[in-house]
Amino acid sequence: MNEDAFLDDHFHDQCGVCGGFGAEEAANLTYLGLHSLQHRGQEAAGIASSDSRQLFVHRANGLVQDVFTNEVIAGLQGDRAIGHVRYSTAGGGHIKNAQPIAIDYQFGSIAVGHNGNITNADHLRAELEAAGSIFQTTSDTEVVVHLIARSKEKTTVGRIADALRRVEGAFSMVFLTPDELVAVRDPWGFRPLCLGTFKDGFVVSSEPPAFDLITASYLRDVEPGEMVIVDRTGMRTERPFEKKPSNMCIFEYVYFARPDSTLGGVSVYEARKEMGRLVAKEHPVDADLVIPVPDSGVAAALGYSNATGIPFELGLIRSHYVGRTFIEPSQSIRHFGVRLKLSPVRDLLAGKRVIVVDDSIVRGTTSRKIVKMLRDCGAKEVHLRISSPPTRWPCFYGIDTPSRRELIASSHSTEEIARYVTADTVGYLSIEGLHQAVRGGGYCDACFTGNYPVPLSTDVPAHKKSLPLVGV
Amino acid sequence: MNEDAFLDDHFHDQCGVCGGFGAEEAANLTYLGLHSLQHRGQEAAGIASSDSRQLFVHRANGLVQDVFTNEVIAGLQGDRAIGHVRYSTAGGGHIKNAQPIAIDYQFGSIAVGHNGNITNADHLRAELEAAGSIFQTTSDTEVVVHLIARSKEKTTVGRIADALRRVEGAFSMVFLTPDELVAVRDPWGFRPLCLGTFKDGFVVSSEPPAFDLITASYLRDVEPGEMVIVDRTGMRTERPFEKKPSNMCIFEYVYFARPDSTLGGVSVYEARKEMGRLVAKEHPVDADLVIPVPDSGVAAALGYSNATGIPFELGLIRSHYVGRTFIEPSQSIRHFGVRLKLSPVRDLLAGKRVIVVDDSIVRGTTSRKIVKMLRDCGAKEVHLRISSPPTRWPCFYGIDTPSRRELIASSHSTEEIARYVTADTVGYLSIEGLHQAVRGGGYCDACFTGNYPVPLSTDVPAHKKSLPLVGV
Amino acid sequence: MNEDAFLDDHFHDQCGVCGGFGAEEAANLTYLGLHSLQHRGQEAAGIASSDSRQLFVHRANGLVQDVFTNEVIAGLQGDRAIGHVRYSTAGGGHIKNAQPIAIDYQFGSIAVGHNGNITNADHLRAELEAAGSIFQTTSDTEVVVHLIARSKEKTTVGRIADALRRVEGAFSMVFLTPDELVAVRDPWGFRPLCLGTFKDGFVVSSEPPAFDLITASYLRDVEPGEMVIVDRTGMRTERPFEKKPSNMCIFEYVYFARPDSTLGGVSVYEARKEMGRLVAKEHPVDADLVIPVPDSGVAAALGYSNATGIPFELGLIRSHYVGRTFIEPSQSIRHFGVRLKLSPVRDLLAGKRVIVVDDSIVRGTTSRKIVKMLRDCGAKEVHLRISSPPTRWPCFYGIDTPSRRELIASSHSTEEIARYVTADTVGYLSIEGLHQAVRGGGYCDACFTGNYPVPLSTDVPAHKKSLPLVGV
Amino acid sequence: MNEDAFLDDHFHDQCGVCGGFGAEEAANLTYLGLHSLQHRGQEAAGIASSDSRQLFVHRANGLVQDVFTNEVIAGLQGDRAIGHVRYSTAGGGHIKNAQPIAIDYQFGSIAVGHNGNITNADHLRAELEAAGSIFQTTSDTEVVVHLIARSKEKTTVGRIADALRRVEGAFSMVFLTPDELVAVRDPWGFRPLCLGTFKDGFVVSSEPPAFDLITASYLRDVEPGEMVIVDRTGMRTERPFEKKPSNMCIFEYVYFARPDSTLGGVSVYEARKEMGRLVAKEHPVDADLVIPVPDSGVAAALGYSNATGIPFELGLIRSHYVGRTFIEPSQSIRHFGVRLKLSPVRDLLAGKRVIVVDDSIVRGTTSRKIVKMLRDCGAKEVHLRISSPPTRWPCFYGIDTPSRRELIASSHSTEEIARYVTADTVGYLSIEGLHQAVRGGGYCDACFTGNYPVPLSTDVPAHKKSLPLVGV
Repeated sequence: MNEDAFLDDHFHDQCGVCGGFGAEEAANLTYLGLHSLQHRGQEAAGIASSDSRQLFVHRANGLVQDVFTNEVIAGLQGDRAIGHVRYSTAGGGHIKNAQPIAIDYQFGSIAVGHNGNITNADHLRAELEAAGSIFQTTSDTEVVVHLIARSKEKTTVGRIADALRRVEGAFSMVFLTPDELVAVRDPWGFRPLCLGTFKDGFVVSSEPPAFDLITASYLRDVEPGEMVIVDRTGMRTERPFEKKPSNMCIFEYVYFARPDSTLGGVSVYEARKEMGRLVAKEHPVDADLVIPVPDSGVAAALGYSNATGIPFELGLIRSHYVGRTFIEPSQSIRHFGVRLKLSPVRDLLAGKRVIVVDDSIVRGTTSRKIVKMLRDCGAKEVHLRISSPPTRWPCFYGIDTPSRRELIASSHSTEEIARYVTADTVGYLSIEGLHQAVRGGGYCDACFTGNYPVPLSTDVPAHKKSLPLVGV
Repeated sequence: MNEDAFLDDHFHDQCGVCGGFGAEEAANLTYLGLHSLQHRGQEAAGIASSDSRQLFVHRANGLVQDVFTNEVIAGLQGDRAIGHVRYSTAGGGHIKNAQPIAIDYQFGSIAVGHNGNITNADHLRAELEAAGSIFQTTSDTEVVVHLIARSKEKTTVGRIADALRRVEGAFSMVFLTPDELVAVRDPWGFRPLCLGTFKDGFVVSSEPPAFDLITASYLRDVEPGEMVIVDRTGMRTERPFEKKPSNMCIFEYVYFARPDSTLGGVSVYEARKEMGRLVAKEHPVDADLVIPVPDSGVAAALGYSNATGIPFELGLIRSHYVGRTFIEPSQSIRHFGVRLKLSPVRDLLAGKRVIVVDDSIVRGTTSRKIVKMLRDCGAKEVHLRISSPPTRWPCFYGIDTPSRRELIASSHSTEEIARYVTADTVGYLSIEGLHQAVRGGGYCDACFTGNYPVPLSTDVPAHKKSLPLVGV
Repeated sequence: MNEDAFLDDHFHDQCGVCGGFGAEEAANLTYLGLHSLQHRGQEAAGIASSDSRQLFVHRANGLVQDVFTNEVIAGLQGDRAIGHVRYSTAGGGHIKNAQPIAIDYQFGSIAVGHNGNITNADHLRAELEAAGSIFQTTSDTEVVVHLIARSKEKTTVGRIADALRRVEGAFSMVFLTPDELVAVRDPWGFRPLCLGTFKDGFVVSSEPPAFDLITASYLRDVEPGEMVIVDRTGMRTERPFEKKPSNMCIFEYVYFARPDSTLGGVSVYEARKEMGRLVAKEHPVDADLVIPVPDSGVAAALGYSNATGIPFELGLIRSHYVGRTFIEPSQSIRHFGVRLKLSPVRDLLAGKRVIVVDDSIVRGTTSRKIVKMLRDCGAKEVHLRISSPPTRWPCFYGIDTPSRRELIASSHSTEEIARYVTADTVGYLSIEGLHQAVRGGGYCDACFTGNYPVPLSTDVPAHKKSLPLVGV
Repeated sequence: MNEDAFLDDHFHDQCGVCGGFGAEEAANLTYLGLHSLQHRGQEAAGIASSDSRQLFVHRANGLVQDVFTNEVIAGLQGDRAIGHVRYSTAGGGHIKNAQPIAIDYQFGSIAVGHNGNITNADHLRAELEAAGSIFQTTSDTEVVVHLIARSKEKTTVGRIADALRRVEGAFSMVFLTPDELVAVRDPWGFRPLCLGTFKDGFVVSSEPPAFDLITASYLRDVEPGEMVIVDRTGMRTERPFEKKPSNMCIFEYVYFARPDSTLGGVSVYEARKEMGRLVAKEHPVDADLVIPVPDSGVAAALGYSNATGIPFELGLIRSHYVGRTFIEPSQSIRHFGVRLKLSPVRDLLAGKRVIVVDDSIVRGTTSRKIVKMLRDCGAKEVHLRISSPPTRWPCFYGIDTPSRRELIASSHSTEEIARYVTADTVGYLSIEGLHQAVRGGGYCDACFTGNYPVPLSTDVPAHKKSLPLVGV
């Protein structure tokens, strides 16, 4: 059984990227960077490196520490490298979609790692196929390398810019050729991307803690629409895209990003605490203690406790040993799945009125199990507080979300949700509160509001006779 | 590189045991119980089961979820089973020492899982060898099965009692024969052992959360010196040992046990919070925030915060993805190891006076790295508070501790330790405070005081020509 | 250490292909067919299948029985499938070059397995890259799918024919789309390809024994230049290529093909026996016994014995347990490698004049070790007879051969070779004898004569800055 | 599915042993020796070594080259070692029965590898259990180490002799202590054991080809009842047993031993050829060709051909790639199993009268499939000749044989067998012919005659309540 199916009722980030230029053991450093980004994708990992003469690539399904061995790292030669971790939607974790994608084309070799989702990919793919292109994956990223290979521009940087100008949607991307590393963020800035220095070289990463691990220094975020080029001569920047309104994903602050990250100048930890404080103000309730659903609810629960004076306790313990698969007893044990991951501190909960703080509710199944578990321990009242608004809309910008039908908040009122999860009360943070917590505007909040800043292109030809390839 | 060597400067519990009698899918339930006890031993795991006609056994090196597959669980037939997880001292994780040990002898088959350490094992082993016994492991537990096989008693229970009366030291043990499950706790009660019910049957476990996972109900602790026998006719109890002063391991409350356990009627979580409150009173200091070393320091840090009003923050984030091995860069990255496991929330720490709460200091190497990491983030002051007294003495009762020489507190004053770990101040909880936190007497505190309730037998003959067997 | 490097001094076939259309469990039958073709490639294996709606693909490094599990076979749905086994040159066994290659393009999906080598691939690749194509492998087969995707023809069959008309060299290929299976053999007929029937469906394979295993019936060879198309309406044939002189690889009879194969109407076993008879006539010598180098030399040694009356004995025993890797003692054991694979029957050899029959000599290193081994057993004389002419030229048509420099016969006379391998005499079959043994003309014998029927295209542009991609 | 169940209808040797004293890299040499003995046991392998101070042991299920890695071999330190390969009866391949067994006892450590079967093991085990011994395996070898540990003798050699004097049945054993290697063969000499020299040291092995592989020299067979002791002072011999009539297993010559072995002064290859010659004389038939069932029938088929002048051909090809498991198609393919392993050379067989020579018939199922396969190829007549008498009785001396009921010859006449296997005629070698082929007397032929030289002890107490332990 898959962990995600039975333990983890969350939206999932689809990827993380990192890379570096001008560092001994670049592949090893990239490997460590990927370890820091493991929370952004656990299905597959890959690294491409170069010694300035050619590209070396390795990618496979699995966690970072399983995909790479000493032998593989040693084979990834050179002082420049990029890496990628990937989360995959149910059933689609095929190795052929692992990244970096690496190709040979008329002007040499190029590798790319992509965090995001291209909304006009189907349209572009149909156009490329009509012009004779072949596709070996179902990944939208393969579209980008085709566009690069077909560009008439004279330089690698020119070709990348040319290709990406044709692309809509979310892309924080790192490219590697034998000569240069290029990091680009789409003009809306949907997904994060940061820049740092390591000794004489430069490093990039989806989130800054990857820099901490290797003792690199955070410099600044790559800006929306910015293209950072690093080569032997140093680092420079270009802005090849038309300017767009800033639309950084607000859910990164709610759940995806690490709490020790600072993105867009905002501390994720502080933002989460503030969300907790604000939901406390919006939905106060008399209670004996505030507990988080660990680990993602901890900062918000602290904020809730701070704002109300109700004591914070770690009333649910998270297991460190829950892996992908578990042998379930065939006879029914109630709420089995969530018990593997979370266990209650009974003595703390018995006879108490408990506020439990979580970051979001997707289908409601896990919340229901948690509430039941707390009541089984003797909690007298259980009040669920959610540090974000109801998630009602799917994401098209690089997040794996269920269909609208499966999102409980898309078709149920808060009262109905409270009844379903068997909580005494449920309280969601308002959309205004959320924006206040992350300090102001310029965020994409489509999963809460349905206000999609970039439309999905729908004019895709459907003349193909067969369905796409399936890797087994 | 081994996690324990570079990430985890702690004492280690050597084992956990559990079992059940009278439950369909007994092996599967035992497997889940072992999952709940995984923190007590990550080197090896095993289960013995019986269908009332014969014993089935499987044991191997690895985590619980790696050792057991669907096929193996299906092969462990019957409605009764015992299980064991094992931590192993450096270099000695040989499969031949995995448990349960299972043997055939003149009256049938018997399997045993042991949490503890027999202090007169060498003496007994020499005696048994002189009488013609052979040893296939280096485990002290093998001594016990030999004593059972040589007992003149008429019943299994009689033979187990007979054997254990000859044994000194710490033993919480579960035995399985085709007919009965026997759970015994040594007369000093060093290591925990709990009893529960599951439907019509009975279950035992080192700690109660194993019951929660399978929806069994906690009944009571097995008492020091008690032998609980479960067979088809139900559960009964015997007290085959001379009474001894109670000496439950106080370190279980400091670090080993799960925070959601209640042992000897004392909530581990509450005890840890109280330790934090008391160390706050004993070693107050003016500061901006209190942070725990996660996860073991969380409850104590909450207590510290409660007692002082200094805000609690989760200033260090623990990675969920640190496994056994990691490819290290050959060039030196400072404090590399601990960075893989813990990362600081920079924005929280910069310019702050920080109290960091940990449960213990063994060698001091990890504390030193943590303090350095906090200072690198800009912490203005770092005050280390330890929720237990200085650990100065090795344990002979089932805990893996380094030699005295390696225990920093055995040869250094608190001031010297503060200087070594580069903290502004270090404050340890007093031994009186620790006893107060766990409510009164009857605890073994030898690792802090050197007051060993059971002496190590030293009259071991040394006539053997060769060193013991080594498994490769 | 690699088996091929130290145990097996042979030319190696680079691939085998098979497939079927119109059979329940098509993937399972293809898997068995690949097992029969395992001798043609041990590095990687793959299968593509279809249920008429889409393609399913699995490929990986390893032997057929390791690459496929029950789960994988079950996932390869449908009643039509193609399969491929691959041998890979030293160090280049990257999974990205495993086949079948499967792509999506404007008219649907197509998969291809290729046995052979395209001599103008570099030229075509450069042309395709100039037109904007990207390459994800270093395989010449990827060139063909690009040409298909860019063809203006209206049907799959038309596009395949269009693509292959541009291609020179050796190609026995099987294609699969959701609707049809296409098997093509290049107009020179370099590599074998056979056609059979299975119940109501059709099957293809590099060699006929794959049919025997699944109880299919051999129908006929696919002819040089023939394209066989199988779909729902049955089987039909096209001849899209300009006619070329027949150039079936003569080395298939010498070594590559299975002895139980019949190719081009000639029994491989009988051809090898005849080679043995003819080398006996060309190079007679008085001796006590004739022994083969097993297994490839057995039939020729029987022929030698038949022709001369000198008794045939199995004087060298071949181990069934030699795998890919072996731990070698660091101290030198003479002729270690070959001893793992072959061992002499001492009692048979002592004091005897021995004729040892092998199929070919590549570098001479293995022959030298075998002669030494026989002399160590007391053989009085050792006469080496080779059932083919000296191999002096590399192959460009799908066989992995060392460079000319490494081929001992390209720079040494037979007498020099005898001296190097320490044999009393060495006798090679003449080129006329070889042609006589396989009954007449129409064979490519370039590895013996240097008469290459299709030239290597050399007009490849070298404007790329970087070397091709390397998979790690 | 298990190979043995569906591909291999043979008796199976249960073990092979080897060892050496006084050689650098003793474990590596022993590993190579085990590779040479792999045909004697494919289920498990193990090595014990010593550096004169202690014993190092590794054993596991699998083939020799899978069980040992470079790390394991490096850990098996010292200049002395013993090794063991093990075949295991259906379903019983538990690691706990892998050898060498290694124990600590009052006088140090000792390891043992055993080829054979102790006929009074149950009796001795009951006696030992009654005296308080425990058993951790179901192996009869564990009985021997108990007897050693309980012996009153003063020296290791004395204790081994003391223990083995109490034992009946078949035992070729190698013992290792830190100080000495002891090789013993039971007084009947059931199983082979050979002695050789390697540089300044001594080596032992079940069969001599293990010496060839490591370039050791064969010295002589260990004699029945002989105990060879090797220590720092060199090699010496003792004869601790009462003399018994020689009873070397005659089936070693028929099938078990390697054809390149010489045992008891008799070449296995020559003996098999002679068996073929004699069965030709006893059961002549007019035919076009003689073919062996490879590999075991090759030498006998050559003998048959020599005696009759009917040409020898390799009409059945054996696959090198058949491993343990295979995915079978669910729809029935006739005679599937044997087709994976053997395939016919069609052109050779069509229209021919074929004599097929095999070494034995156990259940008859494989013979039936082979005859069918030959007829499917168009063979006009099929005459089966067996180079040994009908196998009618189970073996109690170290060979895995089915029960009498399963042995087709125990309840069917030769004519009935011919009808079952659908051969035109079947001819078995007579028992006199077999003895003539291996030159004279002193052999155990109980599997053919039921004349058991050592009776099975049957006075085993059955007072135990439970069945023995089962490893899962």
